[in-house]
Amino acid sequence: MKILVTGFDPFGTDKINPAIEAVKKLPNEIEGAEIVKIEIPTIFNKCAEVVHQAILDNKPDYVLDIGQAGGRFALTPERVAINFDDGRIADNAGFQPRNQPIHEDGQNAYFTQLPVKAMAQAVLDAGLPSYVSTTAGTYVCNHIMYQVQYMIDKEFPELKAGFMHIPFLPNQVVARPDTPCLSLADDVTGITAAISAIVKQDGKGDIEAIGGSLN
Amino acid sequence: MKILVTGFDPFGTDKINPAIEAVKKLPNEIEGAEIVKIEIPTIFNKCAEVVHQAILDNKPDYVLDIGQAGGRFALTPERVAINFDDGRIADNAGFQPRNQPIHEDGQNAYFTQLPVKAMAQAVLDAGLPSYVSTTAGTYVCNHIMYQVQYMIDKEFPELKAGFMHIPFLPNQVVARPDTPCLSLADDVTGITAAISAIVKQDGKGDIEAIGGSLN
Amino acid sequence: MKILVTGFDPFGTDKINPAIEAVKKLPNEIEGAEIVKIEIPTIFNKCAEVVHQAILDNKPDYVLDIGQAGGRFALTPERVAINFDDGRIADNAGFQPRNQPIHEDGQNAYFTQLPVKAMAQAVLDAGLPSYVSTTAGTYVCNHIMYQVQYMIDKEFPELKAGFMHIPFLPNQVVARPDTPCLSLADDVTGITAAISAIVKQDGKGDIEAIGGSLN
Amino acid sequence: MKILVTGFDPFGTDKINPAIEAVKKLPNEIEGAEIVKIEIPTIFNKCAEVVHQAILDNKPDYVLDIGQAGGRFALTPERVAINFDDGRIADNAGFQPRNQPIHEDGQNAYFTQLPVKAMAQAVLDAGLPSYVSTTAGTYVCNHIMYQVQYMIDKEFPELKAGFMHIPFLPNQVVARPDTPCLSLADDVTGITAAISAIVKQDGKGDIEAIGGSLN
Repeated sequence: MKILVTGFDPFGTDKINPAIEAVKKLPNEIEGAEIVKIEIPTIFNKCAEVVHQAILDNKPDYVLDIGQAGGRFALTPERVAINFDDGRIADNAGFQPRNQPIHEDGQNAYFTQLPVKAMAQAVLDAGLPSYVSTTAGTYVCNHIMYQVQYMIDKEFPELKAGFMHIPFLPNQVVARPDTPCLSLADDVTGITAAISAIVKQDGKGDIEAIGGSLN
Repeated sequence: MKILVTGFDPFGTDKINPAIEAVKKLPNEIEGAEIVKIEIPTIFNKCAEVVHQAILDNKPDYVLDIGQAGGRFALTPERVAINFDDGRIADNAGFQPRNQPIHEDGQNAYFTQLPVKAMAQAVLDAGLPSYVSTTAGTYVCNHIMYQVQYMIDKEFPELKAGFMHIPFLPNQVVARPDTPCLSLADDVTGITAAISAIVKQDGKGDIEAIGGSLN
Repeated sequence: MKILVTGFDPFGTDKINPAIEAVKKLPNEIEGAEIVKIEIPTIFNKCAEVVHQAILDNKPDYVLDIGQAGGRFALTPERVAINFDDGRIADNAGFQPRNQPIHEDGQNAYFTQLPVKAMAQAVLDAGLPSYVSTTAGTYVCNHIMYQVQYMIDKEFPELKAGFMHIPFLPNQVVARPDTPCLSLADDVTGITAAISAIVKQDGKGDIEAIGGSLN
Repeated sequence: MKILVTGFDPFGTDKINPAIEAVKKLPNEIEGAEIVKIEIPTIFNKCAEVVHQAILDNKPDYVLDIGQAGGRFALTPERVAINFDDGRIADNAGFQPRNQPIHEDGQNAYFTQLPVKAMAQAVLDAGLPSYVSTTAGTYVCNHIMYQVQYMIDKEFPELKAGFMHIPFLPNQVVARPDTPCLSLADDVTGITAAISAIVKQDGKGDIEAIGGSLN
């Protein structure tokens, strides 16, 4: 089995992005699955192209995109991507979409094929905070998650894909009082645990754990 | 113009639900629009039926569902409803769905027809915290928002509908330390402001404000 | 019985201070006690002088100072004032002390004579969030609380005094996302409840409720 | 120079306490100072006796007590200890004091002799969140900080001492949603940085950084 794992580069006022830093430190093999790692740009109109080429080059069974979720306390696998771009800030190319669909001929939303409850449980079992999120936002993170799902819909029907958000690193919150963080080592441990769950649940669907969010 | 506004009854460990309390106190007319108010049960398999009957009875131009979002700091119009039920707790009929689609023949998600950015801006202009949310959760709030959208898709193509979450009331956080709340009077002011925005934007779509969430 | 209640004027970037706004709206009599209300300036080197004169003029049995605690979720009676000025921002006269004792001949700290647990319980009973705080900070709030205690120590041994912090108002958090607030009406209700507790506990000391903070 | 560093054992519902875990992992020498490490019990009536004996045995120049502050986001050197015990929960001996002074003949509060602003700055410079706190609570953490100051007041006038709180570990927040944490490795880095600042500022007092808290 082959799993393509992507990580965004830094954006906004941050000089570092935990996503690509953690992805770079992942082992090359997890539970027998080969891990292929790539950096992708925090650019709406370019990130999908980079992932698309990597899918063509590597023919992975799974794609897992990793992104930074500043302000979240936990590692959060995402359940759904929506057909909507709306930038609170400009991306690294200076582009700031407003209220725009990503693909006119795409579904309103796509659900991930990943076993998100099993992934969250595996992260918790590794001693780290985690829960399944039902929003990836409206910035590049939701964008790339949606774009890969759109590729599955139109071009790679066998592929399975999803997204996981991770918190700020400690050095990112030095000037952001009362903001949660997680260390890079913990990010690596957590992502590795989540990927282990993907491998173990392969072909079995997700677990039936109690979850959901009231709002 | 006629606007049907619904509010859920209390659920879980709470004896009160700010949603129905605020809805009951709304004026009967806002910016010239007639406001029809109904209480709906916090029951997955019943709330849609009640709203459906109210739509048939009242033939509204708009439906706005109001629900409690414990833990949120702001009044939050919702952008999207997803085809997914997953109960962290049982509903008022003791039913607790897990990982279930709401309608097999429904879209993965539906976007609201309401001008959510204009609604949030109107609430802010009224001196209250607000932002557009991109998740209504996976409990009855998302469920009813999705169900009304499904009705629009299948039966009422002219109808426009959406959802707004509101925080806990102060007396709900007496035993929940460090949890945000908003007073009932502020809820009424905020919902009224949001409805005013719906009326004013009728036929014009949403405003182009900067918004979106990074995650 | 006579109770002098003081409220600070606005400071920093805020055009309004919930403290003086709430104080102005208090009833003139609570549980039979006469309530005397004054506004005091957010100025280290002036606020104590204003309160001192008001004590001489009014000869109150109690002094209760009210101040804004941006970021707190609850109405919080303060247990202790420390002999230390340290301004994160300048006061309204442009003065920003660093690491300075308030009075060289004062105690390191003074405990309030007010029944703070009874006050917090009364606020909770009124349906509003409350707990006893063990820090009034190092800005003008701690300063005035300390100064009045110093006056008790040196000049008015019969006087009893204390401080209560209150959260931001809703309109103060419109541009401060994810920040708690409380309405002015709730502030008035909460302060009134706390003062009622002061009157009822007069001569009896505080209640023995479980309280305290782990850190 | 010799520095005695103490860490509390686990208490309440937790099986682990980051304080003693981090203390055990500190280097034996920091900036040339010898580090002596001891575990102390989370017991009001015993912890001071253990530290007192360790002071007699080791004759340290400094004592730094480390304790857990569940819910805090940062490593927080404490400025002041108050003469007040009030247990929200019982200690490890089942004792739960209410509204009690620690020493009838002690000061109302004692300020630390440690350069707390320099310590916080050193932690920030190490890439970790930190600020100076003005409350150590009313549980055993404040108790031991006060007790050591009382010993300085009555018995060891040359000794300098203080306290630093550290957040939950990641595995402690697995079942505490939306609660901040810090890794054990980061705790060790942060405490080491704080101790380095103590050594470097020895004989120089604290730095004049802007600090303080508004409330």
